[in-house]
Amino acid sequence: MPTLLHHPLDPSSRLARLMLAEYGVPVELEEIKPWLREADFLEINPAATLPILVDEKGGQAVGCLAVLHMIEDLYAPTSIDGLMPTDAAQRAEMWRLFEWVNAKLNDEVTRYVLEEKIAKRDTRGATPEPSVLRAAKTNLAEHMLYFNWLLATREWLSGEVMTLADFALAAHLSSLDYTGDIDWGKAGETRDWYSRIKSRPAFRTLLNDRVVAMPPHKGYADLDF
Amino acid sequence: MPTLLHHPLDPSSRLARLMLAEYGVPVELEEIKPWLREADFLEINPAATLPILVDEKGGQAVGCLAVLHMIEDLYAPTSIDGLMPTDAAQRAEMWRLFEWVNAKLNDEVTRYVLEEKIAKRDTRGATPEPSVLRAAKTNLAEHMLYFNWLLATREWLSGEVMTLADFALAAHLSSLDYTGDIDWGKAGETRDWYSRIKSRPAFRTLLNDRVVAMPPHKGYADLDF
Repeated sequence: MPTLLHHPLDPSSRLARLMLAEYGVPVELEEIKPWLREADFLEINPAATLPILVDEKGGQAVGCLAVLHMIEDLYAPTSIDGLMPTDAAQRAEMWRLFEWVNAKLNDEVTRYVLEEKIAKRDTRGATPEPSVLRAAKTNLAEHMLYFNWLLATREWLSGEVMTLADFALAAHLSSLDYTGDIDWGKAGETRDWYSRIKSRPAFRTLLNDRVVAMPPHKGYADLDF
Repeated sequence: MPTLLHHPLDPSSRLARLMLAEYGVPVELEEIKPWLREADFLEINPAATLPILVDEKGGQAVGCLAVLHMIEDLYAPTSIDGLMPTDAAQRAEMWRLFEWVNAKLNDEVTRYVLEEKIAKRDTRGATPEPSVLRAAKTNLAEHMLYFNWLLATREWLSGEVMTLADFALAAHLSSLDYTGDIDWGKAGETRDWYSRIKSRPAFRTLLNDRVVAMPPHKGYADLDF
């Protein structure tokens, strides 16, 4: 069985867990707090990022892109499309929106929320800086408008089929939902989309996550939120 | 012939041009200044990132990951390995180091240098902020130590074969070399590696690049630098 070094609220770790669950691959989880920069973790990954997959067949994959490609290479179904469509235009749109989530949403929202609410507490017992959280909230509102606009015209984030881009966004929004940073009352089409993706069997594992001394926001695990 | 919307000093655009040249694909270049956020550019890419590939066979690919995957899907040789090895462990190491360059080196060095030296001048005629450039320089020195350490033990960045990771790093370092931000005297093994990759035919197109009112740093186009 592969082992995944992860953190329960790290969106890239969540993406890897969603992919593995969707492809029916059982995985052993080992929790890491990357911001503590512990020596044996830095030896495996000097960039101090997660996730890291250790697989009997594939070897060791370090970081988001290495892990998601290894999961896709080893475990995607061969008879039907997995999470990466084979059609060139659909693939391109999937990568565009994966990058939107993984780079832009992360840079403008998720990394600040997790740094302020989790890493700062773990490393120096500090409380979040309100001005940073306010900026992240304003940025998130802009992103939600864009996702609403996309999802008003298509079934899934990158088109008519569910892809890696949907899982990437679901991973980020579920972390931000855990910390109570999503106003579902204003989430429009994104709320309907999230409700559909949250009901998938692959999602169940994430809904049982708990971070010590930080219970999830009300509604986090409810399918009817 | 495919068209690439690019900027001569944008590292992701350079990576796309290197890949296309390596695979022998002629391309029409159209220069964009993404920081000007012009309406017709934002309509194609609301994230305002480059490159964008418009291809007869593949359609439109927007952003770094979409473009590099489309180039690989459409143009990589099928009889031999292209820039992405087929061996699982080699692929994982390639993605790890691609991500190192594309996320970490970019976040800590390249984006600051290009913002300060190019975007600020173009958008508001402003001069670079010395403290930002100093921080980027300090960060770059740390990265160079890591690359030197890797390249002391292996032929190419991610192992014994040249991969996408080498092209990604070469794209970033060549932008930083254009702006005069690399101290080759201290570059050790990375200098030898850069000298090898700079001599490849695929690299020639980059060495003729010129940005208006900003000539390249001395030695930029020399194979013996």
